[in-house]
Amino acid sequence: MAPLAVHGSPFSTATMRVLATLYEKGLEFDFVPVDMSKGEHKQEAFLSLNPFGQVPAFKDGDLTLFESRAITIYISHEHAEEGTPLIFRDSKKMAILSVWKEVESCQFDPAASKIIWETLFKPRFGMTTDEKVVQESEAKLAQILDVYEARLSQSTYLAGESFTLADLHHLPTIHYLMGTPFKKLFDSRPVVSAWVRCITDRPAWAKVTDMLKH
Amino acid sequence: MAPLAVHGSPFSTATMRVLATLYEKGLEFDFVPVDMSKGEHKQEAFLSLNPFGQVPAFKDGDLTLFESRAITIYISHEHAEEGTPLIFRDSKKMAILSVWKEVESCQFDPAASKIIWETLFKPRFGMTTDEKVVQESEAKLAQILDVYEARLSQSTYLAGESFTLADLHHLPTIHYLMGTPFKKLFDSRPVVSAWVRCITDRPAWAKVTDMLKH
Repeated sequence: MAPLAVHGSPFSTATMRVLATLYEKGLEFDFVPVDMSKGEHKQEAFLSLNPFGQVPAFKDGDLTLFESRAITIYISHEHAEEGTPLIFRDSKKMAILSVWKEVESCQFDPAASKIIWETLFKPRFGMTTDEKVVQESEAKLAQILDVYEARLSQSTYLAGESFTLADLHHLPTIHYLMGTPFKKLFDSRPVVSAWVRCITDRPAWAKVTDMLKH
Repeated sequence: MAPLAVHGSPFSTATMRVLATLYEKGLEFDFVPVDMSKGEHKQEAFLSLNPFGQVPAFKDGDLTLFESRAITIYISHEHAEEGTPLIFRDSKKMAILSVWKEVESCQFDPAASKIIWETLFKPRFGMTTDEKVVQESEAKLAQILDVYEARLSQSTYLAGESFTLADLHHLPTIHYLMGTPFKKLFDSRPVVSAWVRCITDRPAWAKVTDMLKH
């Protein structure tokens, strides 16, 4: 058995974030499916890995981690020499990377995830979309993407001149948004749009989206 | 002029997080007040520091940072040998710290901040509290604090046996919640309650709350 294991669902954005990191690093790992439709993430076996009952959880030997962005930064530091670097050695460059990592987590993700939940997942579960939440989130996301358009006009990637965790963390939510009418928010901004094409074209990301087809 | 500068408001939880870190480290810095009541955070001078128009921004020489949790981790690494350590050198201990740092940011803060906004700030601005949002956030915060009660029964602090950024990041929101009826959520959990007393009693934190009195 490989020492690394991801317990999660390939449909969960947080799980996809960890899988993308492992594929970028070229690391071997076990994938242990957690069937959320059966509520397995709220059962004792999974709660012993993550007391919050949210996928994914990650194991490296006897170390157990949860929270996707804590897992990706751990993997990136622990396997710094393997595959795509994903982080910087220089402390000032790393500080800029942290800024954009926080922007994804505290600004982009809340707006993007609300749109995905309201317009993609709620209808699948027979729930009613809250149009007010969608409108507010769309307006926020548009403002955020205006800042991205300016930022990405100055540097190829969010944190600088190479692809890092700051970009990678966006992939799962962007993937889902591209299947909604909110794709226009990206398409209407040429520099953001080129960045989306560039980061979604990565072979490691194709391996993650392939997992959705099985 | 000191090389470090914080541009922000002592009433903003994100600014308080950065100030607490600087005081724990015993670092000298300039505090540049941003008058949010006059909309200074949305004016060009501040937007050149943070394009999202949110306090605080931070300067270290020619490096400009925003997003409070990116600033605190930068300061903690850059000044690792000064004052309170706040982070760990060991990679596995640091991974656990990252987990609880993400828990604060992605679980605790959204629930806590919604309660603070709805019950403390909205009334001050003549706006109406949304009781449904308050109830949902209170239920979420109660669940989160149940996990904290179990976690803090195993270790003195969230990330282990010493005070770190994982604890410190909670201080501003806890400070505001202690002035609301939702204080009961902490008081009713003995281990959480002892942790709150312990982390709010720190001299560095007293320096931050002193700034609110001026």
